[in-house]
Amino acid sequence: MAACKETRGLAVLGSTGSIGTQALEVVDAHPDRLRVVALTAQRNVDLLESQARRYRPPLVCMADAAAAGELSRRLEGTGIEVAAGPDGLLEAAAYPLADTVLNAIVGSAGLPPTLAALGAGKRLALANKESMVAGGELVLSALRTGGELIPVDSEHGAIFHCLRGEDVNDVEAVILTASGGPFYGRSREELAEVTVEDALAHPTWSMGRKISVDSATLMNKGLEVIEAHFLFAVPYERIKVLAHPQSVVHSLVEFKDGSLAAQLSVPDMRLPIALALSYPERWGPPFLRTDLAKLGGLSFAAVDVETFGCLELAYRAGKEGGTATAVLNAANEVAVEAFLQRRIAFLEIEGIIRKALDAYRPSPVRCLDDVLAAEEWARAKAARLVDSGRVC
Amino acid sequence: MAACKETRGLAVLGSTGSIGTQALEVVDAHPDRLRVVALTAQRNVDLLESQARRYRPPLVCMADAAAAGELSRRLEGTGIEVAAGPDGLLEAAAYPLADTVLNAIVGSAGLPPTLAALGAGKRLALANKESMVAGGELVLSALRTGGELIPVDSEHGAIFHCLRGEDVNDVEAVILTASGGPFYGRSREELAEVTVEDALAHPTWSMGRKISVDSATLMNKGLEVIEAHFLFAVPYERIKVLAHPQSVVHSLVEFKDGSLAAQLSVPDMRLPIALALSYPERWGPPFLRTDLAKLGGLSFAAVDVETFGCLELAYRAGKEGGTATAVLNAANEVAVEAFLQRRIAFLEIEGIIRKALDAYRPSPVRCLDDVLAAEEWARAKAARLVDSGRVC
Repeated sequence: MAACKETRGLAVLGSTGSIGTQALEVVDAHPDRLRVVALTAQRNVDLLESQARRYRPPLVCMADAAAAGELSRRLEGTGIEVAAGPDGLLEAAAYPLADTVLNAIVGSAGLPPTLAALGAGKRLALANKESMVAGGELVLSALRTGGELIPVDSEHGAIFHCLRGEDVNDVEAVILTASGGPFYGRSREELAEVTVEDALAHPTWSMGRKISVDSATLMNKGLEVIEAHFLFAVPYERIKVLAHPQSVVHSLVEFKDGSLAAQLSVPDMRLPIALALSYPERWGPPFLRTDLAKLGGLSFAAVDVETFGCLELAYRAGKEGGTATAVLNAANEVAVEAFLQRRIAFLEIEGIIRKALDAYRPSPVRCLDDVLAAEEWARAKAARLVDSGRVC
Repeated sequence: MAACKETRGLAVLGSTGSIGTQALEVVDAHPDRLRVVALTAQRNVDLLESQARRYRPPLVCMADAAAAGELSRRLEGTGIEVAAGPDGLLEAAAYPLADTVLNAIVGSAGLPPTLAALGAGKRLALANKESMVAGGELVLSALRTGGELIPVDSEHGAIFHCLRGEDVNDVEAVILTASGGPFYGRSREELAEVTVEDALAHPTWSMGRKISVDSATLMNKGLEVIEAHFLFAVPYERIKVLAHPQSVVHSLVEFKDGSLAAQLSVPDMRLPIALALSYPERWGPPFLRTDLAKLGGLSFAAVDVETFGCLELAYRAGKEGGTATAVLNAANEVAVEAFLQRRIAFLEIEGIIRKALDAYRPSPVRCLDDVLAAEEWARAKAARLVDSGRVC
């Protein structure tokens, strides 16, 4: 008789987004291993209602209070509890029926639920890299008292798996691969002219709008550098970025003996999500198979840091430390939103973040309020820069 | 105060060959971690004498009795014991001062020392793949009672490291990469004309003569398929070979969730040797660093099994099982030697092995004598085929 398989209770924070919906595909593929116990979304009532009816979690939550009211009416009689607002989000993150909490919220709004999940001793599958960027020290401090963190980003998931069975003291460097985004190979002059539609057309990954723009500016890679610093306790000097347009090698670890370890697959976010949700097990069959002979070739190149200035800004904020990364991230969130609203040009995203960092003096992160205050300052500063017209 | 580092006693069997001399370079780089306690060679008296004077092992051995006598005279007064012949080799393999035995003997002559080292409970760093091919079942059986086996082949070392921290039940396939050798891309007609010099000019690896010819015929990859079968308990159907001319990805493991793990480095045998001798530690600094951006690209393709027939012969012998792989290997050793002596043409190597396998009915391997009898039959058969003139 085969051993009885454990079913894990799963809370999905941000279930209507790109990562959230793909996570539910992972659930669909492994209904004997994963049971949805909580779902949360910002304001997409239609999709959250349909997910709630399908997966029947005992708890759902909408961050937007009006949307929560609407959803509550629609789910009347189903027995599903509908929570609302930031408190409802924290309730879902610490939900007693959840063994694993997938945080797929967009932006640094994901930080309080990250801390709540770890505080409740959960295994946190973290797709919300902004919570590490804004409050990495707080996350590490929460981890020292309980919980467990498994990265969901394909890059950090790759590094996490390359480090299985290894001694972190043997790590010479971590090497994050970067597809280069939709503007790989373009000049600064060409970047000045790109549109929102251009920026959203990512060549290898299907992703949400915010991360697609971050990929286009290479800020996504910058945020990942900071995330890697906190996740793997590697100094910034030992975090490298390597352009790799095919997005098949998801990242590498270089050991002090010169050996490199890598994790590979054709790009499909369901795999890194499944890797995080199944860890330390592996669940088959695969969503997609990778045939290297069919792919033919993989190419690598240095990243063009002159043209894509956001990456260096992230290293700079990371090295400044303290609240600087929260400022970097919040200024980026405001600037990306303004770009998506066609209020600023593509290169102004970078210009706004640089001006915000130039004007800021970082301080240590002792508590969540320190992060929130830094973010508030950065959002106001970035908003003023957006309003002031062209910044570069 | 730093913890005192352990120094490992190392016996190098085959110390004057390509792997042996590179292993001594690893010792030179880590004199605080490795101490040479025994060295053995076939008949290269000059080099073994100079190695003995440099590393001062208490025991040396020459497989050739006359050479041993000469070495004994030369080392008189040094206090170094000089052993001779097969018994001397077994003495070195089981030498009490050795923690680790590196078996870098060429050919299936390496099997008895492999069994002796494991029988004495040693950690065996195995570069002699022929001992696994000829007597895999005997090696596994010896391992069940004691000792430990770390592969030195770059491919198997890569797989071994990819499996660190993993559950072997999660393995979908192991993928051995193949440089393709010096004749990659050639047609069968072109192969008919190649010379010994052509075959010895390997494009990426610096190796001994026998393995260089095996690389040119792809029999080396075939022997590695059989070695992987025994080392990692993977059925032949789940062992794949992938052409990869740059020899940077040393091999991969495909897991059942679709994720691939790989180990990479620029080709330099000192790294896999160091990986095996340092395991489970890693010792820096590296001999060479790998810069993927500088390499630019890695290419992959299906292996041309029509043109290079030896690979399929190895799969066939592996699936036949029992003594068939010993026959494959022994026939190959005779045919390669005849090619190196310019007695047969390149494609006749394959022809001789095929005819030997066709004429052979495999039996189970219960003891070393079963293997030796099969080898004796195969050597005689192959020798007759060599003498008989053209076989294909």
